Amino acid sequence: MARLITVVEEGGAGAADALRRAFEEARPAHRIGLTGAPGVGKSTLTDHLITGARDRGETIGVLAVDPTSPFSGGAVLGDRVRMQDHALDEGVFIRSMASRGHLGGLSEAAPKALVVMEAGGFDRILIETVGVGQDEVEVVSAADTVLVILTPGWGDGVQAAKAGILEIGDIFVVNKADRPGVRDTVADLRSMLALSGKLEWEPPIVETIASSGEGVAEAWDAIERHRSHLGDTGLEAGRRARRRAELSTALAARVRARALEALEVDTGADLVEAVERGDTDPWTAADRLAGI
Amino acid sequence: MARLITVVEEGGAGAADALRRAFEEARPAHRIGLTGAPGVGKSTLTDHLITGARDRGETIGVLAVDPTSPFSGGAVLGDRVRMQDHALDEGVFIRSMASRGHLGGLSEAAPKALVVMEAGGFDRILIETVGVGQDEVEVVSAADTVLVILTPGWGDGVQAAKAGILEIGDIFVVNKADRPGVRDTVADLRSMLALSGKLEWEPPIVETIASSGEGVAEAWDAIERHRSHLGDTGLEAGRRARRRAELSTALAARVRARALEALEVDTGADLVEAVERGDTDPWTAADRLAGI
Repeated sequence: MARLITVVEEGGAGAADALRRAFEEARPAHRIGLTGAPGVGKSTLTDHLITGARDRGETIGVLAVDPTSPFSGGAVLGDRVRMQDHALDEGVFIRSMASRGHLGGLSEAAPKALVVMEAGGFDRILIETVGVGQDEVEVVSAADTVLVILTPGWGDGVQAAKAGILEIGDIFVVNKADRPGVRDTVADLRSMLALSGKLEWEPPIVETIASSGEGVAEAWDAIERHRSHLGDTGLEAGRRARRRAELSTALAARVRARALEALEVDTGADLVEAVERGDTDPWTAADRLAGI
Repeated sequence: MARLITVVEEGGAGAADALRRAFEEARPAHRIGLTGAPGVGKSTLTDHLITGARDRGETIGVLAVDPTSPFSGGAVLGDRVRMQDHALDEGVFIRSMASRGHLGGLSEAAPKALVVMEAGGFDRILIETVGVGQDEVEVVSAADTVLVILTPGWGDGVQAAKAGILEIGDIFVVNKADRPGVRDTVADLRSMLALSGKLEWEPPIVETIASSGEGVAEAWDAIERHRSHLGDTGLEAGRRARRRAELSTALAARVRARALEALEVDTGADLVEAVERGDTDPWTAADRLAGI
């Protein structure tokens, strides 16, 4: 599966066929998104969630999107070592993916990898991102059930709203709940969520201590409750919307690539030079190149 | 100027002309980017940097990109109240911009607003973002001099690398330097930066306590040193690269918009339905729609 994902990611010969076949084989899994700022304990929590699923006899795939390090040129996989306990377990598949450097962007690479994982027939799929970038938020928001991870004292209400994460969370996890300030964070969160006025589903707030595994069972309970709340109809409606969004993204990426080629041809090159010199503004030049 | 930026942002009638005229009038200012996670004290620091510039008799424009709140639909401007001291100062212009909801994206809206501000003839322009999203990083990276703001204990070295901010910083500011852990954070940062092996410019690390203004003079010193390091040649080279990137972004946005229109026409609509049902995978459909 790892090799197949690489083939599909890199988009060389056979990639389109492989993807098409994976898509036909895919059995939609319950997709669970996890997101939060760096250092909130996402990886440790993921680790415990995997154990929880395995204890119930479920198989589970994990796609962990790692912010790309400017130094290594690849993903920083430091945290992944914690997940090595599962390395020999055939019911677990863990894949890291760099957040940058994909043809068509992360918003295309991640859904493709997820389709390949679904062809593997897992019961659950976890998608983990440092969900602040637009692409990362897009990827994690496309999950059926989204967990937003916070820590006590992470920031006051305004900061939470600023990060724009309140809207995407179906479940909020306050991790490191043994630290001071947990009451305030939970209370803050509760009042912010009350303001948002989501009527159909009131996002539960779960307190966890991921280092010891405390609260992870409650997190799974909340995930299950959300899945039941969605029901088959809700899940399918979400999938339809997701597929349509994936199509838009993919189409945009293809056309974008072609537009950029236009910069290389003769007329393009002259305009580019004029823009670089500062003689023409970039937006007028873009209008002209796009033939508007 | 505020009205002109709104016209240019909203892209209605006259927007292209207004922008073209602003571009002709614009006198390139020294653009200074500030970025850091929520809560590190960017706004307070900006406030002090403004005061510092004004004390030297310089005029200054500020573009503050605010993550869009999912509740209000607009930017969360809570922190901006701190800047009200400058509201009556004609040598200061402060503009907030939401991070989402712009035609062509933030990567197009922000540079346009900056051109309008440059037409206003400011000596310095500050650009402030919560620089984690791809668009936000792009916007702030396009500044001539980029300040990355951290706080003590913000995260260990791996986390700093994960956030991908080390590469974009010309100057690192450890704010809230009266808090415990400042030594470790600075040491960590120094060793990470040493690893990066930037030869021409060794990014200085400045400690500040923005609440009291301590260290802000040193931050301005560092900014000035970086500007001297760049020199006129370096500044112009950076501007050329920036204009070219702005053209690529603008062209891509225009063509993207047109591609999405293709989804609405007949053939498009059928394919969209097939994708939504799960009969066709989004990427094969996108290839077909793009005519590849």
